[in-house]
Amino acid sequence: MIRPIQSHYPDEWSHCYGCGRLNEKGYHIQSVQGEAGITVCEFRPEPWHTALPGYVYGGLLASVIDCHATGTAAAHAHRLEEEHERHPYPRFVTASLTIDFLKPTPLAPFRVEGRILEHQGRRIVVACTVGGGAHLLKTVEARITVVRIPDSGWPATASLG
Amino acid sequence: MIRPIQSHYPDEWSHCYGCGRLNEKGYHIQSVQGEAGITVCEFRPEPWHTALPGYVYGGLLASVIDCHATGTAAAHAHRLEEEHERHPYPRFVTASLTIDFLKPTPLAPFRVEGRILEHQGRRIVVACTVGGGAHLLKTVEARITVVRIPDSGWPATASLG
Repeated sequence: MIRPIQSHYPDEWSHCYGCGRLNEKGYHIQSVQGEAGITVCEFRPEPWHTALPGYVYGGLLASVIDCHATGTAAAHAHRLEEEHERHPYPRFVTASLTIDFLKPTPLAPFRVEGRILEHQGRRIVVACTVGGGAHLLKTVEARITVVRIPDSGWPATASLG
Repeated sequence: MIRPIQSHYPDEWSHCYGCGRLNEKGYHIQSVQGEAGITVCEFRPEPWHTALPGYVYGGLLASVIDCHATGTAAAHAHRLEEEHERHPYPRFVTASLTIDFLKPTPLAPFRVEGRILEHQGRRIVVACTVGGGAHLLKTVEARITVVRIPDSGWPATASLG
């Protein structure tokens, strides 16, 4: 059993409605490191997570993409740090999100894949795709820019721009 | 009491997890026509709709923006039709979504405003902003391209590209 990326976040930053293990009502989105630098999230939508009947709600797809991208960045940044096994993973928040819904995603378990596109200082750009349905046809493409939270904490006046 | 835009959708397209009045477990996002061509959605997040503690989850913001944009387009397209009072509003789905999270949105009731940027055939581009906190400072800017569903129904093989 591979431990999900999100299980490595510090407790105080594990309350996210999307991926926080300490959020009892959340989605509990989990990502794992796959092969060839690809991260993977398998998600099983509930019957009520629908847009038009039979298809996954776009806001849920955006949620899974968002948390998978921050997780992908966290795992990447963590690997680059020395003595990284001593520390929890760093935490990133989303600065911008572009999603192209290429076609409707069938209301069935779907798979999100992520990979690092750019990494400059505290900013990382992640590409994600969603594959849905029996044949995992690509239904969504996304590009997400995330920013690392300083270890000193999260200032309320922070600008993400 | 102004009737929300989403209450004018036909029943068969009112199951959306974001804005469907017939989805018992959904968010029940509601939009109304405001002044000067602006549409408005007031949303009250629950305490568990958090990202980092104290701030609204980005996936929820994306959800509210998404449904508010399709609603804004529906109201706009409906107004342009002749004899429009006889018909339910047309239904749009999202083809692409770009969201810039300028700063964190405080976990408190927030307001989304929408306006039409472009309208060409079945495609409409909507701009949305989110204002959060006591002073409704702008925290998010978004641009959403939506596509009208044909009155003949929603083909499973539809491309949104």
